[in-house]
Amino acid sequence: MAKVQPRTLSGFMELLPARQIQFDRMAAIIRESFSLYAFTPLDTPLIEASEVLLAKGGGETEKQIYRFTKGDSDLSLRFDLTVPLAKYVALNYAKLAFPFRRFQIGKVYRGERAQRGRFREFYQADIDVIGDGQLDISNDAEIPAIIYRTFTSLGLKRFQIRVNNRRILNGFYAMLGLTEQSGAIMRTVDKLEKIGEKSVRELLIGPDIGLNDEQAAEILKFIAIKGSNAEVLSALEGYRGRNTTFDQGLDELSAVAKNLAAFGVPETNFVLDLTIARGLDYYTGTVYETTMLDHPEIGSICSGGRYDNLAEYYTDKQLPGVGISIGLTRLFFVLEDQGYLNDNMCTAPADVLILPMTEDLGPAIELATYLRSWKLQVQVYAEQKKFKQKMSYADKLGVPYVIFLGEDEIKQGKVTLKDMRTGEQQLLTAKEAHGEISCHTDVGDGSKPILDKGE
Amino acid sequence: MAKVQPRTLSGFMELLPARQIQFDRMAAIIRESFSLYAFTPLDTPLIEASEVLLAKGGGETEKQIYRFTKGDSDLSLRFDLTVPLAKYVALNYAKLAFPFRRFQIGKVYRGERAQRGRFREFYQADIDVIGDGQLDISNDAEIPAIIYRTFTSLGLKRFQIRVNNRRILNGFYAMLGLTEQSGAIMRTVDKLEKIGEKSVRELLIGPDIGLNDEQAAEILKFIAIKGSNAEVLSALEGYRGRNTTFDQGLDELSAVAKNLAAFGVPETNFVLDLTIARGLDYYTGTVYETTMLDHPEIGSICSGGRYDNLAEYYTDKQLPGVGISIGLTRLFFVLEDQGYLNDNMCTAPADVLILPMTEDLGPAIELATYLRSWKLQVQVYAEQKKFKQKMSYADKLGVPYVIFLGEDEIKQGKVTLKDMRTGEQQLLTAKEAHGEISCHTDVGDGSKPILDKGE
Repeated sequence: MAKVQPRTLSGFMELLPARQIQFDRMAAIIRESFSLYAFTPLDTPLIEASEVLLAKGGGETEKQIYRFTKGDSDLSLRFDLTVPLAKYVALNYAKLAFPFRRFQIGKVYRGERAQRGRFREFYQADIDVIGDGQLDISNDAEIPAIIYRTFTSLGLKRFQIRVNNRRILNGFYAMLGLTEQSGAIMRTVDKLEKIGEKSVRELLIGPDIGLNDEQAAEILKFIAIKGSNAEVLSALEGYRGRNTTFDQGLDELSAVAKNLAAFGVPETNFVLDLTIARGLDYYTGTVYETTMLDHPEIGSICSGGRYDNLAEYYTDKQLPGVGISIGLTRLFFVLEDQGYLNDNMCTAPADVLILPMTEDLGPAIELATYLRSWKLQVQVYAEQKKFKQKMSYADKLGVPYVIFLGEDEIKQGKVTLKDMRTGEQQLLTAKEAHGEISCHTDVGDGSKPILDKGE
Repeated sequence: MAKVQPRTLSGFMELLPARQIQFDRMAAIIRESFSLYAFTPLDTPLIEASEVLLAKGGGETEKQIYRFTKGDSDLSLRFDLTVPLAKYVALNYAKLAFPFRRFQIGKVYRGERAQRGRFREFYQADIDVIGDGQLDISNDAEIPAIIYRTFTSLGLKRFQIRVNNRRILNGFYAMLGLTEQSGAIMRTVDKLEKIGEKSVRELLIGPDIGLNDEQAAEILKFIAIKGSNAEVLSALEGYRGRNTTFDQGLDELSAVAKNLAAFGVPETNFVLDLTIARGLDYYTGTVYETTMLDHPEIGSICSGGRYDNLAEYYTDKQLPGVGISIGLTRLFFVLEDQGYLNDNMCTAPADVLILPMTEDLGPAIELATYLRSWKLQVQVYAEQKKFKQKMSYADKLGVPYVIFLGEDEIKQGKVTLKDMRTGEQQLLTAKEAHGEISCHTDVGDGSKPILDKGE
């Protein structure tokens, strides 16, 4: 028969089994973390009517959309999880309880130019809290706590959640009489880390934005405000009273910083950073970015913010919200690339592989059924192969334990348990064997998918 | 602003929060069950090159495919999880350990005519064991054990796994000199439950198949063999020695039935049934169907079988396998429709909702952080609303517990815990409150997504 060359599309992540288990562990930890904060899971379709998905229209995203017709329908694959959320909330408004707290971990599609580390199909892990008419600022304060807990649970240590407030920026630019240019200025300032202060200054006084030297200096001085949270807030207090938007933003930022200790977030993992603005015009108040302290070049691994109006394209209801998104596929790629994936994590599909040494498989199957009743992951190796091949299979899977079950063991009502890491063999009862086999999902840092070498 | 009417495409299941939690619980139990049997998770792209996905070509499925171009690429959405598995195994052959045991729970797409209970986007939950060159029959025996454990864990009781072997059928038809017509005969016999014996007989002697009365009678007599597993096997032994394919099939079926007790499967949930053949030509040996005893009209809720050659369109390697698939979205629809979903299952996103009665949210946040350290799902309700509205929110979410935290409680270092089901209120320490709040995910039949009223 003529063969078709099997291949996976470029820009689509498809993992080998061990890595897949590591990826799934990450997703499971994120899911658990979001659930602890009482977010409810959603699962919306990957396909939506183009008219609905592209209601906002235009923008850079539209070119990247996977859009096609099926029968008479003009369809598109979702390119983020926010638009489907907006549709869902508008559609089910009367049936939802507000604040509506949802998380969604799902694939989204963007037909970007294929290059290393860029994906056309990738997971996003989103949380959002949506209010009906209004939403308390304490929700903005909770987001960094959730992100802190999530990344810590994954095993990441050296990361920093950076928080700012768009109202502070907008208010500040209004003070300088630069409201018109504030969008362009913020997009430029946002590049500070990537291109440096000198280049930012050049762009600010360049023909496109056209500030004078004094204005540029004021802006660079402002965004250079640094220090502890208390120091930053104190410096910002110096601007109070000149613009109401600024003052509101400062109140909000202070409220976000205030309850951090109660939320259990150490100051080392959190910083007020006036340079971040997020590119999207969508955000109106608090904005978040999260960076790896030892790899700032990677950029933000988790971003989001506060918006005034989730679903304005679908409903007249005012639905303010605050949310954050982890680009999970890209994060996984970066972690692997930078050597952060924990190679000590057991990624075998089985805790124990049973090798029956008799023709009758009955005793091996009974033993497996018994061990599974203790929630152990168990495989009976039943193929007719040489002993060496069986052991090579155990090695290839990376199983931590093997059980040999031959005539002798069956007569004695025992099993021979081999610890594959130490090579040690013991003759034990099934119950004793169960006690020995430490389930790899149980405890310890060996179970965390990320091994952050930083302190 | 002009609004776009928010809507979800017909044929796409999108659940409200409580039902989504129930659906996710089902998926989680299935995942855990597959993992206990040491299947490794896979996650392949939803989009594949059409050339790869449609390598087999033709067939009824092709019309239903979501196929489109993006740039120069001819792409298709996967319509099952088997073809992507075949591609994956052929592509990664050298890196995999065989037998390769994988599970995948993922969405697939078929543009079927929209009708009630038919979905265009739906989850399949598949397991397959793939051998390299050969695969022991004991793998076929394990499949019913996995299905039994999975459905039982979900809360389903009155179901029956029905097993047959295509070689027995093929061998039997060869004995009657009907090898040529065996495909058509099997497709007809497969309809026995739906259309009845009389109609099957008419089709068999009709112009398309053209059997004589004697042949039709032989066939109907054969597929009428019923009884305990021992009785069915004994009746089949009566045909032994007349055809080698038949004899091999009988050996295999006997082997599958033999170890059921060791696998822990009661005979009530398992039956040898000579009427099932599966429509697909793909299957070569063991075939499975699973029916709900009180709702046979629903048809099979979990089907599969043994095949000789997983990936013949991609590789010359002989890769026999055995697998089974649960159509999860349809199953969920049917369960809801028939009243099988457990309405006692707690589907609140939070185990406890904290209502702070002071302006300072610090104490409430600290309490929430403490309770989350015990893995409780906790929400702080921070909106400025009237007490009645707050309680109405708690009701709407269906949270089992509410904590009131006012000045009095804070002074005493206590909390007021209200059990929302009994209405009882207690003044407790945070530690005592944690003890009282039984996490809904913990124990008991109340945590099972399905409530099967059968015996």
